[in-house]
Amino acid sequence: MSRPLPLRRTLAADLPSCPPGDPVLLQGWVHRRRELASVTFLVVRDRSGLAQVVLPPGSAVPPEETTVAVQGVVVANPQAPGGVEVGEATVTALTEDAATPPVELWRPALAASLPTLLDQAPVTWRHPAQRARWEIAAASLRGFRATLDGVGFTEVQTPKIVESATESGANVFGVDYFGRPAYLAQSPQFHKQQLVGVFERVYEVGPVFRAEPHDTVRHLAEYVSLDVELGFVRDHRDVLAVLRETLAGMVAAVQEYAGPAVARLGIEVPDIPAEIPVVHFGEALRIVGAPDDEPDLAPEHERALGSWAREQHGTDLLAVEGYPMAKRPFYTHPQPGDPRWSNSFDLLFRGLELVTGGQRLHRPSDYDAAIRARGEDPAAYAAYLQAFRHGMPPHGGFAIGLERWVARLVEAANIREVTLFPRDLQRLAP
Amino acid sequence: MSRPLPLRRTLAADLPSCPPGDPVLLQGWVHRRRELASVTFLVVRDRSGLAQVVLPPGSAVPPEETTVAVQGVVVANPQAPGGVEVGEATVTALTEDAATPPVELWRPALAASLPTLLDQAPVTWRHPAQRARWEIAAASLRGFRATLDGVGFTEVQTPKIVESATESGANVFGVDYFGRPAYLAQSPQFHKQQLVGVFERVYEVGPVFRAEPHDTVRHLAEYVSLDVELGFVRDHRDVLAVLRETLAGMVAAVQEYAGPAVARLGIEVPDIPAEIPVVHFGEALRIVGAPDDEPDLAPEHERALGSWAREQHGTDLLAVEGYPMAKRPFYTHPQPGDPRWSNSFDLLFRGLELVTGGQRLHRPSDYDAAIRARGEDPAAYAAYLQAFRHGMPPHGGFAIGLERWVARLVEAANIREVTLFPRDLQRLAP
Repeated sequence: MSRPLPLRRTLAADLPSCPPGDPVLLQGWVHRRRELASVTFLVVRDRSGLAQVVLPPGSAVPPEETTVAVQGVVVANPQAPGGVEVGEATVTALTEDAATPPVELWRPALAASLPTLLDQAPVTWRHPAQRARWEIAAASLRGFRATLDGVGFTEVQTPKIVESATESGANVFGVDYFGRPAYLAQSPQFHKQQLVGVFERVYEVGPVFRAEPHDTVRHLAEYVSLDVELGFVRDHRDVLAVLRETLAGMVAAVQEYAGPAVARLGIEVPDIPAEIPVVHFGEALRIVGAPDDEPDLAPEHERALGSWAREQHGTDLLAVEGYPMAKRPFYTHPQPGDPRWSNSFDLLFRGLELVTGGQRLHRPSDYDAAIRARGEDPAAYAAYLQAFRHGMPPHGGFAIGLERWVARLVEAANIREVTLFPRDLQRLAP
Repeated sequence: MSRPLPLRRTLAADLPSCPPGDPVLLQGWVHRRRELASVTFLVVRDRSGLAQVVLPPGSAVPPEETTVAVQGVVVANPQAPGGVEVGEATVTALTEDAATPPVELWRPALAASLPTLLDQAPVTWRHPAQRARWEIAAASLRGFRATLDGVGFTEVQTPKIVESATESGANVFGVDYFGRPAYLAQSPQFHKQQLVGVFERVYEVGPVFRAEPHDTVRHLAEYVSLDVELGFVRDHRDVLAVLRETLAGMVAAVQEYAGPAVARLGIEVPDIPAEIPVVHFGEALRIVGAPDDEPDLAPEHERALGSWAREQHGTDLLAVEGYPMAKRPFYTHPQPGDPRWSNSFDLLFRGLELVTGGQRLHRPSDYDAAIRARGEDPAAYAAYLQAFRHGMPPHGGFAIGLERWVARLVEAANIREVTLFPRDLQRLAP
């Protein structure tokens, strides 16, 4: 192990700061080759960007997407990207000639149908505009964790193979577990609550699984859930305050770490208001003109509320609190004084549900009653209820769907467009 | 949303810096209550540590593990932990009286049998010494990501439901995927390689699934894999250099973020040497006195090599490179000039395999040949091979098992002791 890392390589983005005349080694993909009568241009793509290479006419350049090493010298050229190109170059292929890509990756806009985009994902993600979408996802994850690490949260990793459904018996994938029936976790809900009993404040980033029988533009069978749970809250409003901080941290990280991706996509990153406006569910129904016995908000209601928040509060974010208990999971804490309503909320982002959260029950007797009220036996939840019988604080939490967050940020029409390798009713590969 | 976060609360760890006489609010668990003739002591545990509360004799204090709020004033007392305690206190329970814990959590050492530790995990993890183990895991994850974020890696999240086995056909869990057969990913290997074609340098932290039919102290059916893959390497030695940086970053983060946990456990955090010593597989066989046609290292060989590294190189780490190709997966790059051996390595940490890594094939024709040599049809790997047919760089990577890493650091006899909610041949709950 006496060799240094291969640091002699120059990244495309660093080329403009190299002195003209210096020898350089580029490594990357043939993004584009253009053979003119007097000169051959080669554009090399690496993880940092694009670099222009000039070769004598008639030079052999491997086809697009072949990986190459290019040795040459830095040449100032005001017409080249960044004012610099590589001349006196020799090109060495690092693999066999690449097959022709399913779409022209060198064009500024990616013109691919959705099936092509998804079927050929390992190749179509290489397009700089497509890759920018995931760069925003990765930066968001960084901001999520950094925010929570900074305020006393502990990251946890909980099992995805579970004994029983966590959210409801429906839409759950079965697993053959050494001959016994088991399930893929629909959420880390039960485990993250139990771990509030240990660490007070926990978060987890991980896959969750929903056997969604519907083929829609906003559902996936497997997605990345950003889960948070915290103890010693007064009610769901304290949870919402942490959610606000978290979203602000995610947006700041997108600006800091994915600035070029934001610029490439030309998107508008939202301002997170100092306080997220909140309306009660009953008021939300009045705002959208729905009957006051509606048990849930329809997509068109959410869109109308999104417009209302933009007009009334000048923000993309609106929290709706107090959802009817009948539509919330059994662990939801009721609204004190009026148990028809709950201490839970949905956060709408640009008129679409992005986050669900709220306060949970914490007294064991409340759990027993809530489970019995649903016609079930608390004994079936013995492992989960252990934590409560042995002392839990008032607590609550939320979950952000990574793909929904990114889809809204980049205004993708279909959630699959921002998912590296989506899984749905039809799709199990690549 | 006009209320601030409940910042008025004082954490136990901050109590020593509060001026005597100041009013404080503690929130936490009744860690210990002791009723003496002249005074009642209450020790409150929160996420930051322990605080001593003094109450008049005969005061009602809820049983251990009940969550409470304590209001009182700061009193200097040289005999109290941190030189400070809370006096003039009133105690309010936040839930019903907690049931008696399965083990005495207030004792300095956790005296629980392994079945109790695991069956009652939501409660036993509350013990400060047990919790310290996970705090080391969480700090390790932070160091892993920070190191790689700093050198141009992109975090990815790949699907855990896959069409075919990634490592071998054995030990794979089946999933009923909308009526079609599918599997739980044994590793993100195929996807992380494909994504090298997009981002050059990627990492993923996520669950992997192995239907391990063996009940051993070092295997789990589900564990957390820290996966790394990078392009434009010369060979596996470049991969090993990144692994060294990563481990150094993990150790630094353990020191920085889990210092109290390290102290509580009294463990020795390893120094990561500037260069990890490397021996070739053939030499390793000679060192341990094994026949030179042994195809693999047995656990006793690994232990002997661990001792040898400690004696010869003064380090806990030893890389063994060149494992026989016959024992490595088909995507492994052979050793140039001698294809009996491979450009792969195992990293031994204190005499136990901790990391497997190496250089992968990158030419499509090499993949076709390697797959055919195993008697399989490359067409069965069409989705995977797309990336290679469209241009991939020389690349390699590694995977660290989080639980193995922590088990070695804290010298746990059984990997289950450091796993929040382990899954194995027998265990599917809690």
